[in-house]
Amino acid sequence: MAVYTDIAEDDLARFLEGFDLGVAMAFKGIAEGVSNSNYLLEATAGRFILTVYEPARSNEADLPYFLGLMAWLKDHGFPSAKPVPDRAGTTLGRIAGKPAAIVEFLPGLSVRRPSHEQRRAAGAGLAWMHQAADGFSGRRENNLGQSHWAAMFAPLHAQADALKPGLAKTIQSDLALLDAAWPKGLPFGPVHADYFPDNVFFKGAEFAAAIDFYFACDDALSFDIAIALNAWCFESDGSFNLTAARAFLAGYESRRPLTATEKTALPVLAHGAAMRFFLSRLQDWGSTLAGALVKPHDPLEYERKLAVHREGLHLFDGPV
Amino acid sequence: MAVYTDIAEDDLARFLEGFDLGVAMAFKGIAEGVSNSNYLLEATAGRFILTVYEPARSNEADLPYFLGLMAWLKDHGFPSAKPVPDRAGTTLGRIAGKPAAIVEFLPGLSVRRPSHEQRRAAGAGLAWMHQAADGFSGRRENNLGQSHWAAMFAPLHAQADALKPGLAKTIQSDLALLDAAWPKGLPFGPVHADYFPDNVFFKGAEFAAAIDFYFACDDALSFDIAIALNAWCFESDGSFNLTAARAFLAGYESRRPLTATEKTALPVLAHGAAMRFFLSRLQDWGSTLAGALVKPHDPLEYERKLAVHREGLHLFDGPV
Repeated sequence: MAVYTDIAEDDLARFLEGFDLGVAMAFKGIAEGVSNSNYLLEATAGRFILTVYEPARSNEADLPYFLGLMAWLKDHGFPSAKPVPDRAGTTLGRIAGKPAAIVEFLPGLSVRRPSHEQRRAAGAGLAWMHQAADGFSGRRENNLGQSHWAAMFAPLHAQADALKPGLAKTIQSDLALLDAAWPKGLPFGPVHADYFPDNVFFKGAEFAAAIDFYFACDDALSFDIAIALNAWCFESDGSFNLTAARAFLAGYESRRPLTATEKTALPVLAHGAAMRFFLSRLQDWGSTLAGALVKPHDPLEYERKLAVHREGLHLFDGPV
Repeated sequence: MAVYTDIAEDDLARFLEGFDLGVAMAFKGIAEGVSNSNYLLEATAGRFILTVYEPARSNEADLPYFLGLMAWLKDHGFPSAKPVPDRAGTTLGRIAGKPAAIVEFLPGLSVRRPSHEQRRAAGAGLAWMHQAADGFSGRRENNLGQSHWAAMFAPLHAQADALKPGLAKTIQSDLALLDAAWPKGLPFGPVHADYFPDNVFFKGAEFAAAIDFYFACDDALSFDIAIALNAWCFESDGSFNLTAARAFLAGYESRRPLTATEKTALPVLAHGAAMRFFLSRLQDWGSTLAGALVKPHDPLEYERKLAVHREGLHLFDGPV
């Protein structure tokens, strides 16, 4: 959650002049998003979210990919917030000197403590997103993917050892193991890459929408599942809830059955997904943007998940 | 701006069961309020703001006064957010173990850079509030009023000198001066006490509503004006904009003409109002609540305003 940019009324009025939405009637910073500032915008034409992209946290060149994917998904039946084009037909504009876009307001509630039924619905929602994204022509490499982890970790050894003595060596050995075991040739396409409970809206137990596509990229679809298993299936005491994972996977497979290779790959993908979040959190820890109203996430949460994955998951076999 | 409390879906659902508002359809933390957490709540019955009062920053015993005043104002024609009673007729409830209330959602935009026209409208809005509050039976002493400043400053001498060498002595001398010159017997009643631009909503140049009555108390009505002059009429370079002040005062007087005593008192009241915010900011500086997504306000902003007031304001005489 973050609100970085203070938008003055003149900037907002000038920005809205480019759109067919009338004038602003209410405008409030909301605690949503981590790499951008989000505002609830009530305009004559309805309710919207205005997103301002923080240059320090987003690469402007990636924004057309994200907005294009959101529009594509909505046009292909998936409940994603559709970016609103301005009078010139452009969805990416500028406000107060920063890139910005207006997207539809989506109703729905994210949940802090999902039920198994909601996990199943979230799994089905992720498969739906993967299917709806099929055919999208945008391309974006996963710059937080497996091939980048060694370089991400290189400057962070001391920080890892400061977090927990001896941790740098353990991470190095994990990285070597992941590099050797990393699966290739899995079904590939646009992935959400940040499918956490706060990015999924429900209406009751039903999946309502996915938001925050600002880490979306091309990767193995099952890597997206692996990220989600880490986000949806751990207890707060650090234990992995296998029943939760099976609910998520059953939901996913209700729409897109996994191949045998994907099933076999999931434990190492989940280990890698924990590494990806451990590394970015370790980067952010102690380097929080000055003036940001954001708490960095605790890297130790993912250090504990790494430890679970080192033991291996048995997702599809053994006793439930 | 602050969002302190994380509200889980079960807590929200349970809280809403006490009201006739249906179920939650959207729920987002918003960057509004300094002593509480505010959420946009879209329920079956409409849009509302849910406010959770942080025990560390609010005295629970004061909440019925604040909510009672908001309801009184609305019932007496002033555009304030009306607290919504639950099925038992109570407006103050509890969510996640903390005091909480639901109030109407008010449309309108606060402005960062008010025009003189908006200052005039804001002044008229404040007078309107003072008039509408007349007859309200709640009582709350101003615990940040003049009689409290010496005690507030007593533990902060070192902090003041750390901010600016020699400042403690200057503040002491200001406090003695204010104590000697503090006006008595001015028209008195419920005041907003935090009538800053972010607590005032406009529709275009028209006054639309006042929000955030969580500093409201009984004090001289003209002390409320003095607080507002400090908040609405300084340039970002620290200079006092007399034209802005006259616009605010003209708006105020269009509804409630000031007495000669109030006019004479305003410069010392404005000096005192700057002291009140300087002192509370000095307290907050370096003691920000752990985990709060809030930036403490810079006490130096009000130190500069104190310096301006030491020279004296000429609000009603001299060249414009």
